[in-house]
Amino acid sequence: MEGIIPCSANSLPLTPITFLERAAAVFADRISLVYGNVRFTWGETLQRCTKFASALVHLGISRGDVVAVLAPNVPATYELHFAVPMAGAILCTLNMRHDAAMISTLLGHSEAKIIVVDHQYLHIVKAAIEIMSKMTAAEELPRIVIVQEFDHPSSNINGFDSASDDLEYESLLNTGTLDFEIRRPIDEWDPISLNYTSGTTSRPKGVIYSHRGTYLNTLSTILLNDMSSMPVYLWTVPMFHCNGWSMTWGVAAQGGTNICQRNVNAKEIFANISLHKVTHMGGAPTVLNMIVNAPITEQKPLPGKVTVMTGGAPPPSNILYKMRELGFLIVHCYGLTETCGVATFCQWKPEWDSLPDDKQAKLKSRQGMQHIGVEGLDIKNPITMESVPADGKTMGEVMIRGNTVMSGYLKDLKATEEAFNGGWFRSGDLGVRHPDGYIELKDRSKDIIISGGENISTIEVESVLFNHPSVLEAAIVGRPDDHWGETPCAFVNLKDGSNATQEEIIEFCRDKLPHYMAPKTVVFKSDLPKSSTGKIQKLILKEEAKAMGSLSPAKRFD
Amino acid sequence: MEGIIPCSANSLPLTPITFLERAAAVFADRISLVYGNVRFTWGETLQRCTKFASALVHLGISRGDVVAVLAPNVPATYELHFAVPMAGAILCTLNMRHDAAMISTLLGHSEAKIIVVDHQYLHIVKAAIEIMSKMTAAEELPRIVIVQEFDHPSSNINGFDSASDDLEYESLLNTGTLDFEIRRPIDEWDPISLNYTSGTTSRPKGVIYSHRGTYLNTLSTILLNDMSSMPVYLWTVPMFHCNGWSMTWGVAAQGGTNICQRNVNAKEIFANISLHKVTHMGGAPTVLNMIVNAPITEQKPLPGKVTVMTGGAPPPSNILYKMRELGFLIVHCYGLTETCGVATFCQWKPEWDSLPDDKQAKLKSRQGMQHIGVEGLDIKNPITMESVPADGKTMGEVMIRGNTVMSGYLKDLKATEEAFNGGWFRSGDLGVRHPDGYIELKDRSKDIIISGGENISTIEVESVLFNHPSVLEAAIVGRPDDHWGETPCAFVNLKDGSNATQEEIIEFCRDKLPHYMAPKTVVFKSDLPKSSTGKIQKLILKEEAKAMGSLSPAKRFD
Repeated sequence: MEGIIPCSANSLPLTPITFLERAAAVFADRISLVYGNVRFTWGETLQRCTKFASALVHLGISRGDVVAVLAPNVPATYELHFAVPMAGAILCTLNMRHDAAMISTLLGHSEAKIIVVDHQYLHIVKAAIEIMSKMTAAEELPRIVIVQEFDHPSSNINGFDSASDDLEYESLLNTGTLDFEIRRPIDEWDPISLNYTSGTTSRPKGVIYSHRGTYLNTLSTILLNDMSSMPVYLWTVPMFHCNGWSMTWGVAAQGGTNICQRNVNAKEIFANISLHKVTHMGGAPTVLNMIVNAPITEQKPLPGKVTVMTGGAPPPSNILYKMRELGFLIVHCYGLTETCGVATFCQWKPEWDSLPDDKQAKLKSRQGMQHIGVEGLDIKNPITMESVPADGKTMGEVMIRGNTVMSGYLKDLKATEEAFNGGWFRSGDLGVRHPDGYIELKDRSKDIIISGGENISTIEVESVLFNHPSVLEAAIVGRPDDHWGETPCAFVNLKDGSNATQEEIIEFCRDKLPHYMAPKTVVFKSDLPKSSTGKIQKLILKEEAKAMGSLSPAKRFD
Repeated sequence: MEGIIPCSANSLPLTPITFLERAAAVFADRISLVYGNVRFTWGETLQRCTKFASALVHLGISRGDVVAVLAPNVPATYELHFAVPMAGAILCTLNMRHDAAMISTLLGHSEAKIIVVDHQYLHIVKAAIEIMSKMTAAEELPRIVIVQEFDHPSSNINGFDSASDDLEYESLLNTGTLDFEIRRPIDEWDPISLNYTSGTTSRPKGVIYSHRGTYLNTLSTILLNDMSSMPVYLWTVPMFHCNGWSMTWGVAAQGGTNICQRNVNAKEIFANISLHKVTHMGGAPTVLNMIVNAPITEQKPLPGKVTVMTGGAPPPSNILYKMRELGFLIVHCYGLTETCGVATFCQWKPEWDSLPDDKQAKLKSRQGMQHIGVEGLDIKNPITMESVPADGKTMGEVMIRGNTVMSGYLKDLKATEEAFNGGWFRSGDLGVRHPDGYIELKDRSKDIIISGGENISTIEVESVLFNHPSVLEAAIVGRPDDHWGETPCAFVNLKDGSNATQEEIIEFCRDKLPHYMAPKTVVFKSDLPKSSTGKIQKLILKEEAKAMGSLSPAKRFD
């Protein structure tokens, strides 16, 4: 159209870096981050990130290089979410539950030039690099930058050796300069971060996020939480999990305050909420579990409404009731690493407030509808790509499309092609669409149990188990069966002091479910294997169930 | 980066059309729009827009064609904001205060293929087309689509002649089909709308907005208002003004309810707020003026907090106090047609709540800081492009850059080049930056008065005048002066029943301002010339002041 001039006045790449720059302009003197006794303002956070970006460039980091981090939710992890992109580089957040072998694999796969590591995890990184050094030339190994505890920065903690090549985060930061010209993406589709899938599947994949995708997902996540400006955000979601469900960037976008904590436990959660007047937080249902089961001595009354984004599994009804009693407002979300974090949420309707509790819990356990950044959400037959009817019954695969879907899997074109086959991102999750349009997940494709030709949603059985008063945690997997193919097998972690029996658990489920869906086997287990994000690792439990072999014929029928 | 695949799963053009599609999915049965007794749901609004888009295509509308509209805030005007882009076309909203000559100029300049016109304005469009027909072949004249009153759709109102070529909005809509495939922009930079500048300058310019720019400005405007989901939005801002400050698209994005009204007056405003539990609205200070000066009989208590976006001029302190007393929360914004509406706002800080009233009013009268979609906001020396110091004193030109800045002026590359000269959009507004970073406008470049070498901000003098108890409206312009070059001349509209004298007004100002800034002339005028958006047209007043000639020497000094 004649008269249009695209130029720097009107055409700039979208990037979350601008959130920090704006926060430092608008909220310069407001507290950006609290960690124990440490406090920064947004003005200081921009300065620190600029200096660290400058130091990275001095170290030789070029556009498109990868900088990895292995650390809990400490200030450095937060700062790297801006400093690394500001150096033109890509941030690769590593899972704290990985062992040295896995870390070495991921450092190798990502070709990270630098690994920033919290002192508590230094031994893992040292061991990982030891493994790598057997196959890699010394000059190609990633350089280590150690993050020391802020309260004891001067001493050599956990093996920091100033004679080695290792660098120390604060010292390195202080070599940086403020006159550094921030590197913006040349194209908003340029990668900003790399998130390896949590490894509940066999082979972790490196999910690439773009500046554009994360910018849009951040705004969408703010909006779905009805998050006002200047929130106080408590870091209970690991920042290495989808970049903290976009809230690393989101708190800057809204000029809020980050409350960082090294350890996630009920006592610290309640203490921080009360002390800092927290308004928002997030967490898998295991975090909610932790909160509602906290001893009275650790609980504190909330200073105001606290909105909690939850995801990873539908929150069980009894947990929902207790959270509400305590004063928390739960926003149930759903997403995957491949969707930059949250993609859908159960948009609550005011008219539902007057429904009975159990009906409300049922509505809230649904994954709902797309947020504003997702253009398409559908439940499709994965073969024909036809949409399933909105009958609340017909299962299909959850498929998503939009600018907040990943760019692809690093160095794995084949996996990317498979994931995007048909022009939609195939989530691998099975679900139904209800008549009001809201979707509800039934299972992961790979977790669903097929017993006598019937699909059994393990999520559905688990949600019944969670309502048993003695059950703290539970997971259902298929146990091989000569007759049925599979039967449901429950792994249950009982609450302290409970003496519930296997028969009692089975009876409880048979009362509330069709008999074929009720577990036929119950295994009590106090240490259920979990991923870093608190998800129970069903792959390991499946192996255990497999090792049990088939049920004896006597138990097979009914 | 190896592994990336841009495709329809992850790469889609940003467009506000998706806001409507999502609203129809998530909020299908919620009320989208109320107009008198008319009510639609979001499901119905999507259907109606789809049908109208389909009808437009049947009429021969192609990608990039312009469809104009001249109408108040009735349902059709709202629907066209989606229906026209859904047909791949560009919506040109015309100002209701234009006369037939101007309308004919703009229809010609925009090459509009269709003009949708409210029955109340049909005579203007008929006259405009009459003018055009003298120079234009009949087949190239825009086709007329008449919007009839919803309550009387069957009769021929105000000259609708079914024998003519004119079409009727509802009938045309009903020729459309629901299976129409919505045309999305091929590129998100494609134009979505055309907004002619209000004509306070000599020559209206056609400002081109893109799908991308409006998408981002809509989200930014929602965020700066801390607008939660499902707002109830009262239409007091004309939709033809920067597409209703982005809220046409914004109400859909948030699944809210549009309360449309043909006429904007205090009685209807209070009645609608009370009846529909309005949560948000907007308006120039003249609208606020209307509200606070409403007779007690027309006022109604507010049902809850009502957030009012205001812009166009800083809200005078006495109006701020009264609005607050009534229960309104004022968000002071600033922007231009060229910035898709709002670009900056006075982000309120909680610590300001405890300041004395006059200090709060002073803080709130500032235009503040950029919203999240604006990447750069600066006050620069327009010659050197250097930033002015943040001293609250040094004046410079407000400059803006970001994706929410217009694409350019239609068919006026030269004007676009001038506006973007130096890589920033030059607003033509003069302002200062305060030490806390917030900007404050002092004047339009062309309005500032230079008296004896001193700059006089007409905004500053006007804000003093507004605090005089007898002043309803006021404007300051320069009156030519043989000695000083110019002296400030006030045009004042007194409140009914007031008998304030010129001397009294001048004394009032001299008490509160440096003497050189106080008006030396006061003209009482009950019909100040105004633009459609309620802005006083200073160009006309300047002519009037010019005609007065120089002040007599006796009045010149002090």
